Amino acid sequence: MDKQTRMAHAIRFLSMDAVEKANSGHPGLPMGAADVATVLFTKFMRFDPTSPKWADRDRFVMSGGHGSMLLYSLLHLLGYEDMSIEDLANFRQLGAKTAGHPEFGHAAGIETTTGPLGQGIANAVGMAITERLLSAKFGDDLVNHRTYVMAGDGCLMEGISQEAIALAGHLKLNKLVLLWDDNNITIDGNVSVSDSTDQHARFKASNWNTISVDGHDQAAIAEAIEEAQKSDKPTMIDCKTVIGFGSPNKAGTNKVHGAPLGADEIAATREALGWDCAPFELPADIRDAWRIAGLNAAQAHKEWQKRLEAADSEVRAEFERRMRGDLPSGFEDAMAAYKKSLAEEPKNVATRKASEMALNVITEAVPETIGGSADLTGSNNTKTPSTESVTPDDFSGRYMNWGIREHCMASAMNGMALHGGVIPYSGTFLVFADYMRGAMRLSALMEQRVIYVLTHDSIGLGEDGPTHQPVETLASLRAIPNMQVFRPADAMETAECWELAIKSDKNPSSLALTRQGLTPYRTEYSEENLCGRGAYVLSDCDGDADVSIFASGSEVEIAMAAQAALAEQDILARVVSVPCFELFEAQSEEYKKDILGEAKVKVGIEAALRMGWDRFIGSDGIFVGMDSFGASGPYKELYEKFGITSDNVVAKVVERLK
Amino acid sequence: MDKQTRMAHAIRFLSMDAVEKANSGHPGLPMGAADVATVLFTKFMRFDPTSPKWADRDRFVMSGGHGSMLLYSLLHLLGYEDMSIEDLANFRQLGAKTAGHPEFGHAAGIETTTGPLGQGIANAVGMAITERLLSAKFGDDLVNHRTYVMAGDGCLMEGISQEAIALAGHLKLNKLVLLWDDNNITIDGNVSVSDSTDQHARFKASNWNTISVDGHDQAAIAEAIEEAQKSDKPTMIDCKTVIGFGSPNKAGTNKVHGAPLGADEIAATREALGWDCAPFELPADIRDAWRIAGLNAAQAHKEWQKRLEAADSEVRAEFERRMRGDLPSGFEDAMAAYKKSLAEEPKNVATRKASEMALNVITEAVPETIGGSADLTGSNNTKTPSTESVTPDDFSGRYMNWGIREHCMASAMNGMALHGGVIPYSGTFLVFADYMRGAMRLSALMEQRVIYVLTHDSIGLGEDGPTHQPVETLASLRAIPNMQVFRPADAMETAECWELAIKSDKNPSSLALTRQGLTPYRTEYSEENLCGRGAYVLSDCDGDADVSIFASGSEVEIAMAAQAALAEQDILARVVSVPCFELFEAQSEEYKKDILGEAKVKVGIEAALRMGWDRFIGSDGIFVGMDSFGASGPYKELYEKFGITSDNVVAKVVERLK
Repeated sequence: MDKQTRMAHAIRFLSMDAVEKANSGHPGLPMGAADVATVLFTKFMRFDPTSPKWADRDRFVMSGGHGSMLLYSLLHLLGYEDMSIEDLANFRQLGAKTAGHPEFGHAAGIETTTGPLGQGIANAVGMAITERLLSAKFGDDLVNHRTYVMAGDGCLMEGISQEAIALAGHLKLNKLVLLWDDNNITIDGNVSVSDSTDQHARFKASNWNTISVDGHDQAAIAEAIEEAQKSDKPTMIDCKTVIGFGSPNKAGTNKVHGAPLGADEIAATREALGWDCAPFELPADIRDAWRIAGLNAAQAHKEWQKRLEAADSEVRAEFERRMRGDLPSGFEDAMAAYKKSLAEEPKNVATRKASEMALNVITEAVPETIGGSADLTGSNNTKTPSTESVTPDDFSGRYMNWGIREHCMASAMNGMALHGGVIPYSGTFLVFADYMRGAMRLSALMEQRVIYVLTHDSIGLGEDGPTHQPVETLASLRAIPNMQVFRPADAMETAECWELAIKSDKNPSSLALTRQGLTPYRTEYSEENLCGRGAYVLSDCDGDADVSIFASGSEVEIAMAAQAALAEQDILARVVSVPCFELFEAQSEEYKKDILGEAKVKVGIEAALRMGWDRFIGSDGIFVGMDSFGASGPYKELYEKFGITSDNVVAKVVERLK
Repeated sequence: MDKQTRMAHAIRFLSMDAVEKANSGHPGLPMGAADVATVLFTKFMRFDPTSPKWADRDRFVMSGGHGSMLLYSLLHLLGYEDMSIEDLANFRQLGAKTAGHPEFGHAAGIETTTGPLGQGIANAVGMAITERLLSAKFGDDLVNHRTYVMAGDGCLMEGISQEAIALAGHLKLNKLVLLWDDNNITIDGNVSVSDSTDQHARFKASNWNTISVDGHDQAAIAEAIEEAQKSDKPTMIDCKTVIGFGSPNKAGTNKVHGAPLGADEIAATREALGWDCAPFELPADIRDAWRIAGLNAAQAHKEWQKRLEAADSEVRAEFERRMRGDLPSGFEDAMAAYKKSLAEEPKNVATRKASEMALNVITEAVPETIGGSADLTGSNNTKTPSTESVTPDDFSGRYMNWGIREHCMASAMNGMALHGGVIPYSGTFLVFADYMRGAMRLSALMEQRVIYVLTHDSIGLGEDGPTHQPVETLASLRAIPNMQVFRPADAMETAECWELAIKSDKNPSSLALTRQGLTPYRTEYSEENLCGRGAYVLSDCDGDADVSIFASGSEVEIAMAAQAALAEQDILARVVSVPCFELFEAQSEEYKKDILGEAKVKVGIEAALRMGWDRFIGSDGIFVGMDSFGASGPYKELYEKFGITSDNVVAKVVERLK
C-alpha cells in the first residue's frame, strides 16, 4: 500500500477510534473524505502549524461540521501544537478542544464553527471575498491565498448554499474551491430519497467550473485541484466517495453516518485495511510523513514573511493593524467631532438616516469597514461616499450588493470577520433577521464583530403590514447570548450605538432603526458614551419619582410626552432610555439598582412584545406595546390602534396610582 | 388595441391608481405582469368567484407579495364579491382588506400571505404536493387541479426557492407552474448588480421543464402555459417583462418598483396607453369581459360538483370532512384509550419517543395527518407504521422525506395546511427552528394548523455541542404571537400536548422534545387534558407552600427532586408543570392567580434562558437554567456544569429563605 493511502488511513483510524471512545459522533465522513483531505493538505494547502494565524494562509472550512474528527485528525497529524493525541482521545468530552462539532476558538486551525449545514459554504465565500478585498488594497505580495470548503449533500441541499453559490459565481471567486464529498448518503438513506439535482448543472448555471473525480484516487484528486487552481471561476470538485470507506459491513450506508462503528466492525476495518496499530497509535513513518507535510506547507509562510518585510513600512503597519483588529487612531476623534456637530445642530431624522450619517463618518475614519445590503440599499441607508460597490472585476470597492440573500449575507459576514482585516456591516429589514438567524446565532457563538443594520424596526414602517412589521424580533434577538441589540432613540444615540458596535470586537451587534423621523432629545455633547451604559436617565424629575418610564428607540418620544403630561397632573416621572439590554446587564449592581429605581409605578414602552421588559418594570409593571402581529396602514394610525400613545401611558399610570 | 391587452391595462391602471392614492406601494410588478396574469386568469385558471373556497380550484400564489395590487385587481375584476372597487381605493389603509401585502383571511381569493420573498414558491410546492396526496386518496374526479405561482428575481435569489425547486423537481410535480416575472430589476438596480445565474439551467438541473416567452405577447404566453400543462415535470415559464410597463419615463427601471409613479407620470401613462378612464373607473366592455372570464372559469366548478354528487357517499363525506378541517370521530376515543394505557404502564422514555408513541395512535386515528422530517427521521421519531414515504411516483404514502431543507419544509407545510384536507407535521432539531423561522412566523400570522416536531431540545442532547443545543430557541418561539410552544415533561404530557396541537385549528404548534429519557410523573389517567391549562400543579404540598417551583419538560424531574429534598429540611414546596406558556395566558385570571400562588419564594427551572419566565417567578424569582450557549459533553455532566440540578435549586432556596 502506498504511503499516501496509509496517510489517509491514519485519519480514518484516528476518527473511528475517537468516535468509538466517545461512544458518540460521526465516523462516516472522515473515513470517506480522508483521501481528499490528504491530497489537499499534503500537496496544496499553504499554512503554518507553528503560526496558525498567519494572515495569508489558505483557509480550509469543514462545512459538514459533524465530520469534525477529519479536521482534528489533520491538525494533530500536521503538527499543530494545539492538538495533541490526548485531545483526540478526549473527543466530545466536557472542556475538550475537540467538541462534537468544530468550535472556533477551541483550537488553532479551526477557522470557523460549523455544524448547522450550509453555513461553511457561505463562510468560505465571505473569506474568499475578503481575500480579494485585501489583495486589491494591499497587493498580491501580502494577500494571495485560496479558500477551500468541504461540503456534503446536506450542505448543498440547504437553501443558503444556493445563495452562496450564486454569489460566488457572480463575483468570479476563482480562488474558491468547493470539495463536494459526494457519498450519496444522507441520514434518511440514499440521497435519491429526497433529491434528484444534477449538481454539476446547478453549479454551472451559477458560473462555476466543475470537475468529477474518484474521491479515493489520490492522483486524480490532485489533478482536479490543479485544474481548479487554473480556473477563472470558482470550482466545484465532485469527489465521489464511499461514506465510511474501509468498513467492510457498513461502508456506503447511512449506518456509518452518525454512530460509532462498534468494536467488532472496527476490528474488521483494521483487518480489511491492513492497519495493525492500537487506537490512537500510528506507524512512525506515517507520523513522520504528516509532520513533513506540515513543514513543507509552512515554507510559503517564510517566503511571505520576506515579502512582508520588504513592503513599505506604512503599508505593512496598516496591514498588520487591520489584521489585529485594532481600530485606526483617528476613529475616536472623528466620532467626537461628529457628536459635537450633532449637539450643535440636532436633527429630526429617522434613525436609519442617523445611521447613514454616522456611517458617513465611520466609513471614512475606519477604512476596513465593508458595507452592504440584501438589495435594500436605499431603505437601509447603508451606502456612503466612501463605499463604492464591489463588482466581479473590481474589488477595490467597499460595498457588497448581496442580492436578495439575507442568510448568505450574514454567514458570509461571519466568514469576513473570521478572515480578519475587515469589519463587515450590512442591512436588511429587522423582520428579515428571521431569514438569517441561523448565521446570526453563529456570529454570537463565535464572538465575531459583525454588524447587522436592521431598519424598519416596528409597526412604524406602516403600510407594508404585518409581514414586514417586527413585533417579536427584538425579543428574539435579545435572547441570543453575546448578541448586542441596540435600539437608539435619536441621532445622538445612533452615533453612540454605532461607536459601541465598531468597538465591540467580541460581540456581533444588531442595530434596530426606524423608518420614521424622531425628535432629538440628546442635544448636549457628552464625553461619556451614555448608550454604553445600556440604560440611563434621559430626563429626570425634580424630586422622588412617582413613576419610572423605560423606553427604547421611537418610543422614547412617547415616554417624554407622557412625562410632560403627567407633570401637569403633578405626577413626577423620570424617563430612562434603554438602548441596549445586554450592556445594561454588564453594569455594576449599584448602577443597575439606581437605574431601576424605586418608583411606585414602572412603565415600559416599546412597539414590540413585552418579553424581556419585566427585567425593568417587574412582572406587575405597566407595559405599553404590542401583544399581537401588526397591521397595514399609515403608521400614526397604527400607533393609535395599538394604543402606543402617551395618552394611553398617562391613563394607565393614573389608573394605577388611584 | 385588442381587448385582451386592454384587459391587462385595467390591472395596470387599477394598480397604479391605488398605489398613487395610498401614496405608498409597488406599481411596477402589477404593471409588468398584467399580461401574464390576464392570460392565466382568462384562459387557464379554474376557480369560482362566487364560491372561492371550492376545494378543487386551481391555486394561484403571488409569491412577490409586494405586487399585491395585481392580485386585488384580478379578484375585483373577476367578480369576487369580497373585493369591491372601494376596497381597491382603500389600498394600504388601516382595516382594509387590501393590505400592503396579501394577507390570508382578509379577502376570499387570497390563497396565502406573501411578502417575505421566496415563501410563495414553497407554499405552492406544498399545495401541489397536497393536490397529489388527496388525488391519490380520493381520485382525479374529486381532486385534480393545478398550482400556479408568480415569482420574481427576489424570490428566485432567496435560498428557500432552491429548496423548493429541488424538491418539486424531485417529486415531479408536473401540475405546478412557476411564472417568473423576469423584469431584470431589483431594488438596488439591474439584476446584474448581484446575480449572473442562468435560471433555465438552474431549474433544469432540478428536473424542471423551462420555457421562455415575451411576457407582453399574450398569444405566446398562452402557448407556453399550454405546453406547461402537458409536461411530465414542473414548468418554469420565463416571462420577459418590462417592470412598470406603460410608464413612458420609468418603465424598465427600479424607480417604478416600490414608489407611486406620481400624478404627472400617471397622466403620461394614460396618454401612452390610450386610457381615458378616471382612477378606479373602467370601460364597460372591459369590465364585462373580465366578469365573463370569471363566469367561464366557474364552469369547471359546476362539472366538479356533479362528480362530487356522483361519488360514493362515504368517500364524499370523508373528503368534505377533511376539507372542512374537522377531526374524525374516533380521535378522542383513541387518545383516551392511549392515555389510559400510559397510566397503566408508565414509561420512562425520552419525550421524542413519547411523541412517536402518540403519533402511532394519531396517525392511525387521523388519516389526514401527513408526517415528515428534514432528514432526521430516526432522530425526530416522526415516522409511524401508518405513514409510508411519499415517492415521486407514488403519492399514496403519508410521509415526506423533505431532505435537508428546513425552510422549504415549514413553508410547504404552510401551503399544505392552506390547501386543506391534510394536517402536516414534520421534524427537525429545535435549534434548527432558526433555519425555518421565516416560515414559522407565517404559520402563526396565517393561523394555520402546522405542527413542528422539534427534538433535541436542550443541552440534554449532549455531545453535539453548542451549535446543536438550543438555549434561546424556546424564548424566541414563545415570542411569536399565535405560536403554541409545548414542552411536555413525560409521556402523558406529550400525549396531551399532541392532542392539543391536533385540535388547534387556528394555531401552529411547536413541540419541544428531549433526546434523553425522562421519569413519568403523570401516572394517573385524567379526563381533563391538564396541559390544556398551560400550567398546572403537578405535585402539591401539605399546607401553604414556602416555595413554588415552576418547570417545563426535562426539568420537571429536577423540580420533583428538589421538592423532595426541601421536604427533608421541612420546607414545603409545590411543583407546577408549565408545558405551554400561551395556553396558560388564555386561562381565567382566577386560575392564573391560583397557579402563580403566594409562596414567598418562586423558582423557575428550564435548561434554557430566563427570558419569559419572570411571568411565573417575578423579576426577583430564582431561575435555574442557562445564561450562555451550551457546550459539548455527556449531558449529565453538562447539567452539572451549568448548575441545573436539584442540589443547586435547594441551595438557592435555602439561601433565599435565610
